[in-house]
Amino acid sequence: MPEGLVGIIMGSDSDLPTMSLAAQVLEELDIRYEITIVSAHRTPQRMIQYAHSAASRGIEVIIAGAGGAAHLPGLTAANTILPVIGVPITTRSLCGIDSLYSILPMPVSRPVATMAIGEDGARNAAYLAAQILGLKYSSIQAQLIKQRALSNDVSEIAL
Amino acid sequence: MPEGLVGIIMGSDSDLPTMSLAAQVLEELDIRYEITIVSAHRTPQRMIQYAHSAASRGIEVIIAGAGGAAHLPGLTAANTILPVIGVPITTRSLCGIDSLYSILPMPVSRPVATMAIGEDGARNAAYLAAQILGLKYSSIQAQLIKQRALSNDVSEIAL
Amino acid sequence: MPEGLVGIIMGSDSDLPTMSLAAQVLEELDIRYEITIVSAHRTPQRMIQYAHSAASRGIEVIIAGAGGAAHLPGLTAANTILPVIGVPITTRSLCGIDSLYSILPMPVSRPVATMAIGEDGARNAAYLAAQILGLKYSSIQAQLIKQRALSNDVSEIAL
Amino acid sequence: MPEGLVGIIMGSDSDLPTMSLAAQVLEELDIRYEITIVSAHRTPQRMIQYAHSAASRGIEVIIAGAGGAAHLPGLTAANTILPVIGVPITTRSLCGIDSLYSILPMPVSRPVATMAIGEDGARNAAYLAAQILGLKYSSIQAQLIKQRALSNDVSEIAL
Amino acid sequence: MPEGLVGIIMGSDSDLPTMSLAAQVLEELDIRYEITIVSAHRTPQRMIQYAHSAASRGIEVIIAGAGGAAHLPGLTAANTILPVIGVPITTRSLCGIDSLYSILPMPVSRPVATMAIGEDGARNAAYLAAQILGLKYSSIQAQLIKQRALSNDVSEIAL
Amino acid sequence: MPEGLVGIIMGSDSDLPTMSLAAQVLEELDIRYEITIVSAHRTPQRMIQYAHSAASRGIEVIIAGAGGAAHLPGLTAANTILPVIGVPITTRSLCGIDSLYSILPMPVSRPVATMAIGEDGARNAAYLAAQILGLKYSSIQAQLIKQRALSNDVSEIAL
Amino acid sequence: MPEGLVGIIMGSDSDLPTMSLAAQVLEELDIRYEITIVSAHRTPQRMIQYAHSAASRGIEVIIAGAGGAAHLPGLTAANTILPVIGVPITTRSLCGIDSLYSILPMPVSRPVATMAIGEDGARNAAYLAAQILGLKYSSIQAQLIKQRALSNDVSEIAL
Amino acid sequence: MPEGLVGIIMGSDSDLPTMSLAAQVLEELDIRYEITIVSAHRTPQRMIQYAHSAASRGIEVIIAGAGGAAHLPGLTAANTILPVIGVPITTRSLCGIDSLYSILPMPVSRPVATMAIGEDGARNAAYLAAQILGLKYSSIQAQLIKQRALSNDVSEIAL
Repeated sequence: MPEGLVGIIMGSDSDLPTMSLAAQVLEELDIRYEITIVSAHRTPQRMIQYAHSAASRGIEVIIAGAGGAAHLPGLTAANTILPVIGVPITTRSLCGIDSLYSILPMPVSRPVATMAIGEDGARNAAYLAAQILGLKYSSIQAQLIKQRALSNDVSEIAL
Repeated sequence: MPEGLVGIIMGSDSDLPTMSLAAQVLEELDIRYEITIVSAHRTPQRMIQYAHSAASRGIEVIIAGAGGAAHLPGLTAANTILPVIGVPITTRSLCGIDSLYSILPMPVSRPVATMAIGEDGARNAAYLAAQILGLKYSSIQAQLIKQRALSNDVSEIAL
Repeated sequence: MPEGLVGIIMGSDSDLPTMSLAAQVLEELDIRYEITIVSAHRTPQRMIQYAHSAASRGIEVIIAGAGGAAHLPGLTAANTILPVIGVPITTRSLCGIDSLYSILPMPVSRPVATMAIGEDGARNAAYLAAQILGLKYSSIQAQLIKQRALSNDVSEIAL
Repeated sequence: MPEGLVGIIMGSDSDLPTMSLAAQVLEELDIRYEITIVSAHRTPQRMIQYAHSAASRGIEVIIAGAGGAAHLPGLTAANTILPVIGVPITTRSLCGIDSLYSILPMPVSRPVATMAIGEDGARNAAYLAAQILGLKYSSIQAQLIKQRALSNDVSEIAL
Repeated sequence: MPEGLVGIIMGSDSDLPTMSLAAQVLEELDIRYEITIVSAHRTPQRMIQYAHSAASRGIEVIIAGAGGAAHLPGLTAANTILPVIGVPITTRSLCGIDSLYSILPMPVSRPVATMAIGEDGARNAAYLAAQILGLKYSSIQAQLIKQRALSNDVSEIAL
Repeated sequence: MPEGLVGIIMGSDSDLPTMSLAAQVLEELDIRYEITIVSAHRTPQRMIQYAHSAASRGIEVIIAGAGGAAHLPGLTAANTILPVIGVPITTRSLCGIDSLYSILPMPVSRPVATMAIGEDGARNAAYLAAQILGLKYSSIQAQLIKQRALSNDVSEIAL
Repeated sequence: MPEGLVGIIMGSDSDLPTMSLAAQVLEELDIRYEITIVSAHRTPQRMIQYAHSAASRGIEVIIAGAGGAAHLPGLTAANTILPVIGVPITTRSLCGIDSLYSILPMPVSRPVATMAIGEDGARNAAYLAAQILGLKYSSIQAQLIKQRALSNDVSEIAL
Repeated sequence: MPEGLVGIIMGSDSDLPTMSLAAQVLEELDIRYEITIVSAHRTPQRMIQYAHSAASRGIEVIIAGAGGAAHLPGLTAANTILPVIGVPITTRSLCGIDSLYSILPMPVSRPVATMAIGEDGARNAAYLAAQILGLKYSSIQAQLIKQRALSNDVSEIAL
């Protein structure tokens, strides 16, 4: 089985511009991933099947993005014991606070690792996935250490 | 098949003190109901099965109460074309605003008829269910008309 | 009397761009409707008369949209025992949260089935109306089942 | 006709503990008032009639308190050209912010003079009513000036 | 002394685009007014002097608009027993909620009649001022009754 | 003139339980202070006089606590060029967010150094005052350094 | 090196009642942990040292709880590439929303896996830590699977 | 050592457009300053070193701007006894309320003098720094008095 496959899911293709930023970070870190559109509301059985079969298909971490009454991350977390990272997508009328409050306060034993609302949240979901995988795969951790050193090497600049 | 069966569901027995107020109103209105604890997070397949089979079991309206990352009403609505009424249960840290925002902003074609947060919301879910059933069952509508007349007969009181 | 007439009302023609989306969904579902501008604030007697006479004129479900101090849905609900669906219109300074809070927390026995803020809320009001009417009119329910099957037939897409 | 009659109205007797504080202030200021329970939701025709007939019955300022989906102040303002002062009653789940947002953002030409949420808001409604009446009745203005002087005569205290 | 002079004040000329809408409504209603820029923060003595001398200069109602830490309406109310109407000006980062919360919760006996945030609030401040003056000046009340009749004469339109 | 006098002001004696915590911290740091009740709303002239004369009376930093429509800190800042530290007092219906928003967003050139809502805010106001005075008075800075060392000497505790 | 050590940190012993719930869940799951009080504000060097040395000391996941201006989780995440799970502690005046907003919106590449506010968040932090460790240690995953099966075995109860 | 050096710091160059407004005000007031980019998250040791060495390098007041999980102001305050002024930078999804809540509620004895969100907050940080320095350097206080007189000399304008 390959190392550290990340499953990125979202409920609708309107979430793709945000969630593809997670994919982009994973590519930069040389981590394999797959992107799937699977809806808690339109294809619930597939969503559950996705969650149930994820581990056996080699997925180790799931990144789930959703907006509004954002049920995908929590429902996925309820159907797998893989770590699930939730990305609250920005919404028009409530700025994504609805998405955040639909993802964050999960019942005990069904956690969702919640990220910031919107694009930075999607990027950080990929970094968190890498950190989790890094515990097991030393090459991923090495990659993260290298990347961290570079990002820290921003010298203090006196303007 | 009997007239106007209402299915009341909730994710945990901690929601029962709130949701039993819906049952109490239905009893006052002589409307049959059943109460079931079925969790979107702990028993997702049963929850989907409940939603799928509700119509064939004679249920005509579903009242679903949930708190926090409140996925039960929306997930039920996604798996039935029966009207689903959502009751946001009060929560400790966010006063039920998390519940409200998890229930209200559903995607297009999967509405949840959302009620106020907490006990009055549960009571009103029963009244709305009765109004819906009243369109089809004249005895229920007659009951509602009688009840409405009584509640309107509070005279203007000069103190 | 015709099948399943839906009454769409709003307080001002500035609400029309939002509320016409409800009409559009009803047309797609072959459900008859009428749209009326009737204001709780400018034409209160007509509003009450509208609510009182709705049932006798064949209306079975009322969809009411309003913004700001949004009194139309609740006032309509107070004057009819037909189910009333409320659509909080987006507002400039408070994003429609004022509309939502004016519609949602109705007193016991006067429920308003509250939808999400703005355009998706208007569309979903029509779907909820269809679900309610579908309990009584099998052709409407058949239409909904067909529509639901189509919207669920969005295959899981591996990108 | 007597001088400066104030009409205090509220939707339910549960609002009385708050609204009676307005009455108490009016008594201290020797201003006549009447208190009436009249509901926008349970007795809408009486509410409209109250508003329509208020001026002819000698009422000059109306103080209206309501909680939750608080429609009474706005609906009263829509049916009279007397000044209407609105008191948002505190609510359990939303702290009275729902009441505030149901009263404040009225459409153009139907203002409600909105007070703070809760008890201090009720007291200040009475003071505002007195200030309004004071423009016309010099004895009321004199009373206010006396009262203001007293309340200002709190000396700067070095502890 | 002339009938019903309204004093419109604001803290800075950046508030003028909003507050001039109040002036415009007063003109439509044939009510005299003056507009003054007087700042609670930059010219506090003038502000207090304005408030103290307003009554003796013939002003009967004061409309005060302010944004951010909006102290002008409350400070004016503290220095006069004329009725003061507050208009919360919209702000960039907090949408005028900061302005609203700086104006609304005044201490007991120093009320500010608070209007909605922004432009409609400014317009309604003028209508409220007219209603207040209408108690004393029958020509103003007649003007309001005429205007109200016109605005109510928007017929129920079947689209 | 003595070293580093701090002026603590508040609008009402109901603020004293909170503001006395600032005094207590100043005592612990051996910094002189005076506490005065002076109201922006009830004694505006005294408040302005307090602010105008503060510097000449030897006051170097002002700590102002207020709740609700909390005008005292901003008004004081507008009438002195001494640094003013604002403490938002907790309120019943809005948890002190009203106080915070009345103090924080001051216009340009009239800053208020805003502290957290409530008791910890009052305590920190005293610490900030000490830090400001410490720039000028080495004994105060020495006292702060000693106090800081002690509070940092909380060893990492393995439980 | 032992399997799956979890480091639980918090800024002050006042956070212990909440954070000990995370420890309790880890014990139930037979996962080793250590609890340390280390403050971003009082002992910053120790905090950084803790984060820097955590991996070499065998820690694989860090759970960090903090309240108010809650800097500990983010600062820890900035100084390690181990996964950091943040628990926003409930606060008196802002209900823990301040804690949540201090932890959630981290800059890109420094994620904190954020949990719900308060006690359930602390419990879920332990479950998420277990899920992360379960990827590497099959005994932990087996334990989680067993625990999940039990918690799912709550039968649908018809009341 | 020169008079009154202000250290302006921010976590990233994306904060520069806001924070340079503080620099501009300091220039207008003839106060020396330095601007440094130093990150609590990317360069924590430099940040701590900056704070520790600030006083010895002649800095007397620190202005720190940060956005999102805004840890820079609080962390700086935890590592110096110089007064630290915090500027919450506006953020896209939460309007800077996240920044505000990350800066304001600091633990006891580690205050941050918090300014308004965004550009005016940055400008006012400079004014507050000047007021603090003015206590010690009479030329700075003279400059402030001159500037204040000018800004107060906006005459009351009758439009």
